[in-house]
Amino acid sequence: VTTVQGIDPRTGESVGEPLAETTSDEVERLLAAAHDAAGSYGASRQQVRAGFLRALADALDEATARLVPIAQAESGLPEARLTGEVARTSGQLRLFAEVVLDGAYLEVIVDSGDASATPPQSDLRRWLEPLGAVLVYAASNFPFAFSVLGGDTASALAAGCPVLLKAHPSHPATSAAVAELANEVVVRQGLPAGVFGMIVGDDQGVRALRDERITAAGFTGSTTGGRFLAGVAADRPRPIPFFGELGSINPAVVTAAAAAARGAEIARGFVASMTLGTGQFCTKPGLLFLPTGHGMDDALVGALTETAPAPMLNARIRDQLASGLDGLAAHADVTIVAEASAAPSGGAWATPRLFRTSARALAADAVPLTKEYFGPNALLVEYDGERDLLAALRCVEGTLTATAHVEDGDTGPVTAVLDVLRQRAGRVIVNGWPTGVAVTWSMQHGGPWPATTDAAHTSVGATAIDRWLRPVCYQDVPERWLPEALREDNPWQLPRRVNGRMQTVR
Amino acid sequence: VTTVQGIDPRTGESVGEPLAETTSDEVERLLAAAHDAAGSYGASRQQVRAGFLRALADALDEATARLVPIAQAESGLPEARLTGEVARTSGQLRLFAEVVLDGAYLEVIVDSGDASATPPQSDLRRWLEPLGAVLVYAASNFPFAFSVLGGDTASALAAGCPVLLKAHPSHPATSAAVAELANEVVVRQGLPAGVFGMIVGDDQGVRALRDERITAAGFTGSTTGGRFLAGVAADRPRPIPFFGELGSINPAVVTAAAAAARGAEIARGFVASMTLGTGQFCTKPGLLFLPTGHGMDDALVGALTETAPAPMLNARIRDQLASGLDGLAAHADVTIVAEASAAPSGGAWATPRLFRTSARALAADAVPLTKEYFGPNALLVEYDGERDLLAALRCVEGTLTATAHVEDGDTGPVTAVLDVLRQRAGRVIVNGWPTGVAVTWSMQHGGPWPATTDAAHTSVGATAIDRWLRPVCYQDVPERWLPEALREDNPWQLPRRVNGRMQTVR
Repeated sequence: VTTVQGIDPRTGESVGEPLAETTSDEVERLLAAAHDAAGSYGASRQQVRAGFLRALADALDEATARLVPIAQAESGLPEARLTGEVARTSGQLRLFAEVVLDGAYLEVIVDSGDASATPPQSDLRRWLEPLGAVLVYAASNFPFAFSVLGGDTASALAAGCPVLLKAHPSHPATSAAVAELANEVVVRQGLPAGVFGMIVGDDQGVRALRDERITAAGFTGSTTGGRFLAGVAADRPRPIPFFGELGSINPAVVTAAAAAARGAEIARGFVASMTLGTGQFCTKPGLLFLPTGHGMDDALVGALTETAPAPMLNARIRDQLASGLDGLAAHADVTIVAEASAAPSGGAWATPRLFRTSARALAADAVPLTKEYFGPNALLVEYDGERDLLAALRCVEGTLTATAHVEDGDTGPVTAVLDVLRQRAGRVIVNGWPTGVAVTWSMQHGGPWPATTDAAHTSVGATAIDRWLRPVCYQDVPERWLPEALREDNPWQLPRRVNGRMQTVR
Repeated sequence: VTTVQGIDPRTGESVGEPLAETTSDEVERLLAAAHDAAGSYGASRQQVRAGFLRALADALDEATARLVPIAQAESGLPEARLTGEVARTSGQLRLFAEVVLDGAYLEVIVDSGDASATPPQSDLRRWLEPLGAVLVYAASNFPFAFSVLGGDTASALAAGCPVLLKAHPSHPATSAAVAELANEVVVRQGLPAGVFGMIVGDDQGVRALRDERITAAGFTGSTTGGRFLAGVAADRPRPIPFFGELGSINPAVVTAAAAAARGAEIARGFVASMTLGTGQFCTKPGLLFLPTGHGMDDALVGALTETAPAPMLNARIRDQLASGLDGLAAHADVTIVAEASAAPSGGAWATPRLFRTSARALAADAVPLTKEYFGPNALLVEYDGERDLLAALRCVEGTLTATAHVEDGDTGPVTAVLDVLRQRAGRVIVNGWPTGVAVTWSMQHGGPWPATTDAAHTSVGATAIDRWLRPVCYQDVPERWLPEALREDNPWQLPRRVNGRMQTVR
C-alpha cells in the first residue's frame, strides 16, 4: 500500500502516522456513495443544509486546540495563523448557512402563464438545482480554509452537492483529522454517508475526475496542475465544469504622490504582505510598480532584512522556488535589492528576497518578468512616467487582485491605472494589500486566465455557491409536481422575480 | 477569392449573389476594431445600450418585408414562419433592452467597510463587467433568431461586449443583409464601428476563436462542430469560455392514463412538434415513450402521413439525416411505423418518418437509440411498466428539454418520471411540447452535456446575458474612482445587496 507521509518543513522529519492512499475498491465505494447521496441531499430543505453547515463549523471550532498542532507540524505555519484559519474556515461554513437560508442564490424567476393570450403563454418557473456529486482538490497553503472543509467544500455542500475531497499530500494527518470530524457530523445530522468522502492519492484524484458520477470539480493549486486537470475534465466523453484557481501575480502600483507622501509606510506594508505565510498566498503581491526616484529603497531593504526566514509548506515548493528565482536572478535586466538573513539548511526554509527591474525591461520580456514565483519574494518594477507604467501594466496577465496606492488629489494617472488593472483582475484594491481575503457576500476571488480557469466565478465569498448549480425551468408543471420552492404561494419565502419584477419577502 | 453561395433547398438552385469569404486582412481589421470598441462600449451607460438594442429591433421590424423573401429562398422555410421569426428576434432585442435597464443582471453587492472593527473591515463593492469582444457562431436553423442578430448577439451586446459574428454558410445573403442593417444602426447610434462585425468562412471563424482579442464565444450547432471549437477555445494559451449549444434528444413520456384519456390529441401534438420547421429545431422531441397497448398507432400514422414533405435547410443536413436514418432503420430492434409521402427528388427535401423500438432495447443499446437525428423523424419507445420506463429514461443523455404527458390524479409514476427528466434537462414540460421556446425572463435553453457545453447557462431568455460578464470587486476604492454604478448613493438606482440584505429600488 502506498502511503502519504507528513513532513515537518521546519526540520524535514516525518510527523504523524502515514496515511494510506485510497484503494481502487474504496474509490469506487466512495463514488457510488456520493452519487447515491446526491438525490436526497440535493432535495433536502434549506434548514437541513444550514444546520449541517453550522454543525460542521461548531465541530471545527471545538476541535481547534487538537487540530492546530497537527497542522502546525505538517505545514510549519505559526500557531496563531492556524488558529485564525480554523476560525475563518468555520466562519465560512456559517456564511454559507446564511446564504442557503437567504435563498436568493436560487435565482427563482416566475413568468405566469396566460392561457387567453395569443399564442397562449406557458407558466414558466426557473430556479437553480444542484449539479450532483462534485470533486474538490484541496490546496497545500491553507490546511483548513482551502482544504477538507474549505471554501470549495462549504459552497458545494451549501448548494446541495455531495463532496468527494481529494486530500493534499502536504498535510495528510490534518486532512484525516478534519475528514473524520466531517464524517462524524454527517452521521450525527442523519445525512447519507456519501454526502462527504475523502480520497488520498494523485492517481485516485484523476480517476475520480474521469468518473461519470462526478459532475463538476474545484481546484486550487499550480497553473500546470490545474491546466492538466482542466484538460482531463474537458476530454471526458461528457465534459464537466472545472473551476480552477491557478496562478496570480497580483501587481501593485504606487503613484509618485503616494511614494512621496508615505513611501516608508507603503514599503513596510508591501513587505509584510509579500512575506505573509512565507509568501504562499494566492494573493501575494509579486510585482510592485514604483516611480523612478521613489526613495523607498531604504525602507524596503530595512523591512525585508528584518523579516525572519520561515519554512515553506514542503520541500517541493521550496525547490521549485529556488530554481525559479535562480532563473529570475540570472535575467540580464534583473538585480537583487535585498535578502533576509540566510535560512537554516534543514527542512524547507526560504529566504525573503526582493528583486528589481524596469518597466521597460518588463514590457520587452514579459513572460519571465510577470511570472508568479510562489514564495516570500517580489520584483520591484521602476517606471518612468505614465506611458512607461501603462505599457508595462498591459503586459501583466490575468490576476486575482490588483492594487494601487494613490493619494487624495493625486495628479498621477490614477484613472488610467485603475482601468488597466480592472481589466486584468477580479479584485481591485486602493491603498491596501491583497493578502487577507475577506469572506463576505461581495468578495471576488477569481480573475482572467491564469488566475482562474473561469473568471466568471469565485472560490471565496457567498457567490462561490454559483459554481455548483444549474438552472432548470418548469413549464406548465402542476403545483403538486412542482418543486415546493417554486409554488405560487412561495412557501419557502424566497426572493424572486415575478413577471419581470423583483420581489423581496424578508 | 472563395465565396459562399446561397442555395434554394426547394430546388437545389443558386440564389442571390455569392458572398466572399472574409480576407485575412479584413479579419484582422475586424478583430482590432472589436477589441478597440470594447473599452468605450463596455463602459457605456445602460440607456445607450438599451437604445441601441431597440434601434436594432426597430430596423429589423422595418426590414421584415425585404428580409423574409431572401431568407425564404435560402432556407426553404415558410414565409409565415420567417415573418414570425423576425418578430421573435426583434422582441428578443427589446427584452435585452429591458434587462439592461432593470440592472439586476449586474448583481451589485456592497459590504460596507468598518474601520473601527477588529480587524478593520474593508469596503467591498462587487458587480459584473463585460468580458470584452466576443465571437458568435450563427446557426443554420433560425436564419434570424439564432443568427446575425439572434440571441447570442443580443445578449452579448446587452452585456456591453462587441460582437464578431461568424456567418452561417447556409444563408449568406440573409446574413449579409442583416449585418448591413446592424452596421447602419451602429453608425446612426454614434457607436464605434467595432461594436458589430461579421466574418464569413469556417477557417476565419477558427482563426478568430484563437485570437487573443476574443474573450468568449457562443455557438449553436452540431455536437461534432461544437466539441471541436470548444477544444480550440480550451487549448488557447489563454483559454476562454465557450458556450455551445450542441445536440438534444428531447424525450417525451406519455403515461398510461394520458394515453387512455387523450391519446389521439397527444399523437397529433407530437407529430406537429417533431415535424415543425422540418424537424430542425434544437427542441424537436426525438423520443416518445409510450406504454404498451397505448392504442395511439392510428392517430400517429394518420398525423404523420398527412404531413407534407418539406425541404431541409441544405443538402448537407439532408444527406447526414439520410445516412443516420439508414443506420437507425437497420438496427435489429427498430422498425418503421410510418412515413409521409415521398419527397421531391430535387433540392434537399426530407420525408417525415416514425420509427419504433422498445424501452428494453433502448436500455440495451442506448447510444444509437438515444441519438439525435436532426430532421422530421422520431423514435417511439414502448415501455412495459414503470421499471422498464425508468431504466430506459436513465439511459437518455443531457437534453435541452424533457416532456411528460400526464393526467390529473394520474396513478402512474409521475413523480419518479419527472425526477429522472429533471436530472437530465434544462426545461421540464408537462402536457405541452418543447418546440416554440418562449423568450422570457425565466426561460432556460441549456442542459447537461451534450445539450450544452455548460449546463449552468442558457442561450435564450434574460439570463443569457450572464455568459458575457465577470465579477469585479472594488476594495476601499474612493468614490471618485469607483464605477459610477457602485457609488454609495446608487445613482443608477440598481437593485443591490447591501450588508447581506437585498434592496430593490424600483
